[in-house]
Amino acid sequence: MNMQLSIIKISGNIIDDEGKLTAFLDSFAAVKGKKILVHGGGKLATKVAEGLGIRQQLVDGRRITDSETLKVVTMVYAGTINKNLVARLQARGCDAMGLTGADGNSIRAHKRVHPEIDYGYVGDVDSVDAAFLTGLLMLDKTIVFAPITHDGKGLLLNTNADTIAQELARGLGRSFDVSLVYSFEKSGVLLDTDNEDSVIPRLGPAFYEELKAKQLIFAGMIPKLDNAFAALRSGVGRVIIGRAEELPLLLAGEAGTTIVHE
Amino acid sequence: MNMQLSIIKISGNIIDDEGKLTAFLDSFAAVKGKKILVHGGGKLATKVAEGLGIRQQLVDGRRITDSETLKVVTMVYAGTINKNLVARLQARGCDAMGLTGADGNSIRAHKRVHPEIDYGYVGDVDSVDAAFLTGLLMLDKTIVFAPITHDGKGLLLNTNADTIAQELARGLGRSFDVSLVYSFEKSGVLLDTDNEDSVIPRLGPAFYEELKAKQLIFAGMIPKLDNAFAALRSGVGRVIIGRAEELPLLLAGEAGTTIVHE
Repeated sequence: MNMQLSIIKISGNIIDDEGKLTAFLDSFAAVKGKKILVHGGGKLATKVAEGLGIRQQLVDGRRITDSETLKVVTMVYAGTINKNLVARLQARGCDAMGLTGADGNSIRAHKRVHPEIDYGYVGDVDSVDAAFLTGLLMLDKTIVFAPITHDGKGLLLNTNADTIAQELARGLGRSFDVSLVYSFEKSGVLLDTDNEDSVIPRLGPAFYEELKAKQLIFAGMIPKLDNAFAALRSGVGRVIIGRAEELPLLLAGEAGTTIVHE
Repeated sequence: MNMQLSIIKISGNIIDDEGKLTAFLDSFAAVKGKKILVHGGGKLATKVAEGLGIRQQLVDGRRITDSETLKVVTMVYAGTINKNLVARLQARGCDAMGLTGADGNSIRAHKRVHPEIDYGYVGDVDSVDAAFLTGLLMLDKTIVFAPITHDGKGLLLNTNADTIAQELARGLGRSFDVSLVYSFEKSGVLLDTDNEDSVIPRLGPAFYEELKAKQLIFAGMIPKLDNAFAALRSGVGRVIIGRAEELPLLLAGEAGTTIVHE
């Protein structure tokens, strides 16, 4: 049996809410064994960009990472957010260290190629250096990933944090028994978005399709769930969606939604 | 005989000059064996602070790192500068990874205590985790340090890069044969500041005192040289001062100023 590894992604909403973030950090520090945290961005990048007079570029309603925006996300994600999370975990006795994909060439990506839209400095992941990350985990470090990768040619790339979590789970799934947790501000996948007690404890692909057809899945959840099912199909042991403050319960299968093969 | 380790500090002047920085990175990537880069700040932090409307605090002519300035230096040093250096070294085939002192608890510090001046969020170094850093070097990683440490209680601290380089040299001096290089925009310690050919190849404490007494040492060099002599006294094998673009020559003893015991 392989060693357990928990890969936990937190959404920007948690980072933006000091009370929830503190509760999350307590909960994360309490998770036993090897673990990796992947964080998103939150509103700070928008605030810093506004402060510096950098306009958000939108093409056909989609956000574009132009070179000025790349500078801001590098500052905010890899600097402010990543280093504060690391320092605050250290204060909780969790021996954290921060990485971007450029660090130790841990996640290599390429600038997104799209037939119609130039997304700018956005990365699609090519490879994860599982041996290096395993080496760090074996030094008893908890890894904290910022959503930035690189192309190996000197370019940093803004990269979706859900995707990073999924690629890490896939890359490390050969050496570890991985539990992948998408944690956010809700109790799990809800049957009724206004009722936190309506958590679906187990969700398989057939039920998911049915809920989508009936438009019972909140639009913002669809990319997250698509990623979750893709991760399962690619060999990740378990995928769980639930509240950031309840990590030990989520990992014990006592809260949240577990995504299942059928 | 211990393994060789080169610890190289670059000044902010190099970071601010794209031509010199490119030449430095080529030169750094060409250095053989285990190596650590320690970088300072440069003018970008001042520019970002101005852009965000954050005023530089001065007390009795000394810079103070207030909480807003700490946010800016964390962004710029640990985010922008560190990650761009890492990505650009990766592009040169140098397997770099960036750290602050918070990462892996590699450098622990405390907020400076001073009888008269509150310097704000400035760190004085307490300890270096040589075992962890040795572990990374043994994974064949080149470490790139940003001048930020932490206090273990959740606080990040702005920390002088010359001091970080010196503390790393001291902490790793037990396991490695360390060459510590302070690289900058001049050819070495100059007898005549206007003449790049007047490099003093070897400088011992007696000659240094004589030059200081005659006011032949440029004021900005004094803290750097004081650090260099302190490093030698604390057991660092070699200390060299010279031009950032000439690293292999500096390490071979063919350029720059070597600081000697006598």
